[in-house]
Amino acid sequence: MTRLYHWSFDPAGRLVRLCLGEKGIAFESVDSAPWSPHPDVSRLAPGAVAPALVQEGPAGHIIAIGTRAICEYLEEATDGDHLLPLHPGDRAEARRLWAWVEAGFEQVTDNLLTERVMQWVRRDREPNSEKLRRGAHALRGRLTFLNAMVERNGFAAGRQLSLADLAAAAHLSAVDYFGDVEWRAVPDLKEWYARIKSRPSFRPLLADRLEAVRPSPHYANLDF
Amino acid sequence: MTRLYHWSFDPAGRLVRLCLGEKGIAFESVDSAPWSPHPDVSRLAPGAVAPALVQEGPAGHIIAIGTRAICEYLEEATDGDHLLPLHPGDRAEARRLWAWVEAGFEQVTDNLLTERVMQWVRRDREPNSEKLRRGAHALRGRLTFLNAMVERNGFAAGRQLSLADLAAAAHLSAVDYFGDVEWRAVPDLKEWYARIKSRPSFRPLLADRLEAVRPSPHYANLDF
Repeated sequence: MTRLYHWSFDPAGRLVRLCLGEKGIAFESVDSAPWSPHPDVSRLAPGAVAPALVQEGPAGHIIAIGTRAICEYLEEATDGDHLLPLHPGDRAEARRLWAWVEAGFEQVTDNLLTERVMQWVRRDREPNSEKLRRGAHALRGRLTFLNAMVERNGFAAGRQLSLADLAAAAHLSAVDYFGDVEWRAVPDLKEWYARIKSRPSFRPLLADRLEAVRPSPHYANLDF
Repeated sequence: MTRLYHWSFDPAGRLVRLCLGEKGIAFESVDSAPWSPHPDVSRLAPGAVAPALVQEGPAGHIIAIGTRAICEYLEEATDGDHLLPLHPGDRAEARRLWAWVEAGFEQVTDNLLTERVMQWVRRDREPNSEKLRRGAHALRGRLTFLNAMVERNGFAAGRQLSLADLAAAAHLSAVDYFGDVEWRAVPDLKEWYARIKSRPSFRPLLADRLEAVRPSPHYANLDF
């Protein structure tokens, strides 16, 4: 039994869902939004926040919290395709870019994505246009860098899909719901995203909906 | 041959040095400060910043950049004592707390440590007291949490030294140089730090000096 506490539009939860999907691991999904965490989560460990994975498996009762702990655990302890390359130097590059994505998208999440989501949570609230502007600016910088990496390598960190790609796609997919990604400016990255999007692991994310907020027209379109 | 590009008071570089020390790996140290990076570093990979490790070993020429890539590489590919526990659930908890330290100390580094260091780099500059105050407040929160973890577990993430401890000690040691850690408020953490500090891997850090800035009286004192 595998259970995942997460919120559908949280990029960290999205990365874990992609990772579970790529590994072919079925799981029970339990909603835990940042503004209203599931009460189980704080009981799992001091200071725990979603995404949190609980698994009863051959190694016993496993609790893994946060993208780093969960994805490394799934990579080490479960079967299925590798999401880190096998050569040590290539693994290091994949982990560098995975870490780069998580640190680099913080400004995008804290400003752009959070603002869009809070606008949905509290519908009477005016959006903070300064935050939206700052988040959009941060996003453009990340897109340019990722586009260059994908143009050079095929995937973010090499010729093979890795956790760096899934982390980037998790972040981009969340802001793409709101139409915030200017795909035309980054043609190589757009082509890469079309490839990632068409993977079976991506389907559940493309089916996510926020009540009363329509996704951007191309959100779930594989041929956008 | 192992070469590390780093800056002595950067907590990320300190974690890598501790990790190399615990693994018993000798290395050539090359200075690369955040405000004046070594020209080699940007040539290692697009967007690369210190700490960066270059190693010629049995697996060929390895480049690993950033704490996550470097420490996981050293853990996977080199001999020496393990810095992550062997049981999958314990590994997950160590990685959660390692990630917690790196994310949680960002505010401390960006405000308190950077302000102290910039004060040293540009000596004519007035310190920004608002930043110092904000950083000190963030540090107190982190100290309280770490103290509770250490009181409960012995080490940060369990009964065994792990990368979570080394990451926390790397951050605390840098701000401790400037006397910013109120050890009296966190007796269990103080006892833990005395244990970590007395490890041979810690000696090089305790010998670091900033020209014309004396360390706090207890900085290098094992029995403080």
